[in-house]
Amino acid sequence: MQEHYPTREAIEAAHLRIKPFVHHTPVMASNSINEIIGAKLFLKCENFQKVGAFKYRGATNAVLMLTDAERRKGVATHSSGNHAQALALAARNNGLKAYIVMPENSSKVKMDAVKGYGAEVITCTPTQKAREETLAKVVERTGAIFIHPYNNFHIIAGQATAAKELIEEIPDLDIIMAPVGGGGLLSGTALATHYFSPDTKVIAGEPLNANDAWQAMQKGEVVEALPPDTIADGLLTSLGDKTFAIIRKHVAEIITVSEPEIIAAMRLIWERMKIIIEPSSAVPVAAAIKDRERLRGKRIGIIISGGNVDLSKLPFKYNLI
Amino acid sequence: MQEHYPTREAIEAAHLRIKPFVHHTPVMASNSINEIIGAKLFLKCENFQKVGAFKYRGATNAVLMLTDAERRKGVATHSSGNHAQALALAARNNGLKAYIVMPENSSKVKMDAVKGYGAEVITCTPTQKAREETLAKVVERTGAIFIHPYNNFHIIAGQATAAKELIEEIPDLDIIMAPVGGGGLLSGTALATHYFSPDTKVIAGEPLNANDAWQAMQKGEVVEALPPDTIADGLLTSLGDKTFAIIRKHVAEIITVSEPEIIAAMRLIWERMKIIIEPSSAVPVAAAIKDRERLRGKRIGIIISGGNVDLSKLPFKYNLI
Repeated sequence: MQEHYPTREAIEAAHLRIKPFVHHTPVMASNSINEIIGAKLFLKCENFQKVGAFKYRGATNAVLMLTDAERRKGVATHSSGNHAQALALAARNNGLKAYIVMPENSSKVKMDAVKGYGAEVITCTPTQKAREETLAKVVERTGAIFIHPYNNFHIIAGQATAAKELIEEIPDLDIIMAPVGGGGLLSGTALATHYFSPDTKVIAGEPLNANDAWQAMQKGEVVEALPPDTIADGLLTSLGDKTFAIIRKHVAEIITVSEPEIIAAMRLIWERMKIIIEPSSAVPVAAAIKDRERLRGKRIGIIISGGNVDLSKLPFKYNLI
Repeated sequence: MQEHYPTREAIEAAHLRIKPFVHHTPVMASNSINEIIGAKLFLKCENFQKVGAFKYRGATNAVLMLTDAERRKGVATHSSGNHAQALALAARNNGLKAYIVMPENSSKVKMDAVKGYGAEVITCTPTQKAREETLAKVVERTGAIFIHPYNNFHIIAGQATAAKELIEEIPDLDIIMAPVGGGGLLSGTALATHYFSPDTKVIAGEPLNANDAWQAMQKGEVVEALPPDTIADGLLTSLGDKTFAIIRKHVAEIITVSEPEIIAAMRLIWERMKIIIEPSSAVPVAAAIKDRERLRGKRIGIIISGGNVDLSKLPFKYNLI
């Protein structure tokens, strides 16, 4: 069966819908990095987005797509990371209740942030099974609408708006790159590029240590991630069926990168551009650096997914490469 | 004798002169930080300036003010930090030779950067005396023009342009804040504010552990800094006679802050705004936080002096306050 996924019109409508709520983030560039790589990079800085990540776009779109009856019930999800904060804030800014299931080993900072946005936090043991079961109970108790962090077309359409803005600001990109975890950002980026800049190729970056998307592209089916072990803590999840269908069709290539390559790329951006990007955002940058011979002279847009980093645990003690 | 210092017209001319060479840096703000402080902060982000610091403005102006005969001789200075890089790049971009005396314990990264800009680096033992003697020899040998890092009116007029841009972009500031080390940035900021926004008060931030400017304001004369011990490594020097004369007349107040206050302010900016500011830049932010009761409701511009940080030596292992 042909999967139906967000149309050009759906993404345009999502963009109009969320515009009053999200930051129009800047596109930044660095001459010295361009000299190092031998290409022209344009960074779409979602690290400056509300809650510090692109996730706020999708969460806002999903919340705004609810019916009045659904709005009265509120929204629910399970997440230890950026989606938890994004959904909590999107709900608060639209007068909805949010129920967020978080593993009990989530960082206190993140849990406090979610509570700070007025959401009800329900903790559970830190397994996928416990998260899903706890969420099911919350949904049963409250009637809240489950908003999946990525395998949801409203989420995907919202995430697509970052690439849409990049394309509108920087014409004639040869390539647009994004990181891939669950695939919400990548599938949205691929659709926006397909509709609004069809001659631009979409390439993903993925940690070698969490390369389920790369494997899925080889096998032609979704692959469960092995227990992933990467500093790119936003990319631990596996593709969903919806994100995979889009990625399979519209993403040209996935480049995998090692942990030292990720850390070196992150350090390069911090040092040269004076902006804080999270490890997940450094993944496509690392991919561009790794394949710089092949990418020489290209105009490359990169979606910088976010800037949420635990400053107490930085990897910069040593220069790794 | 009345000291003559840069006029309104001199600063306007400096701005026109350096505009083709410097970045017009953005002004950034953060709702969450404004909520924490209870005031409206506007950060003039010279961390995004070339060489990562405001110093490039003054160095460019000083280089452009040379006569043709002086240009042929080149420029010289002693510096272990941002002024070294700024003068080296300003010289290169204007086709001049630069001779930079650097203490032999300067970081290899900084020395390499200065060499990368094509300057001749002359090392010396790391004392003020050795720096001055070595510089004198270089000047004698080459005839190069010594460009003092701050006690120089062309430097001061160049540094003034950052505050001028801030004032042009953000009207009706109650206060403009800047850090103070040798006083080049602070005196320029004070003059620009005096000329272009005379109702705005200028307040400086200074590390308690390097509080020679605070002492000078009490005593009414320049005070040698005790061997300063602060993470704010851009603020180790003492005021010069030229910078002191301006600061004494046009700066309302100097607020001193402790090392934990500096680190906490730096961390707050990194975490909430996702931009990298150096410890020296965190000093006026820390001052605004320290005196937030008194500053409540004010519109406060802060000159963020730079973003050059050694990522191998970050102070974020512990939350200090």
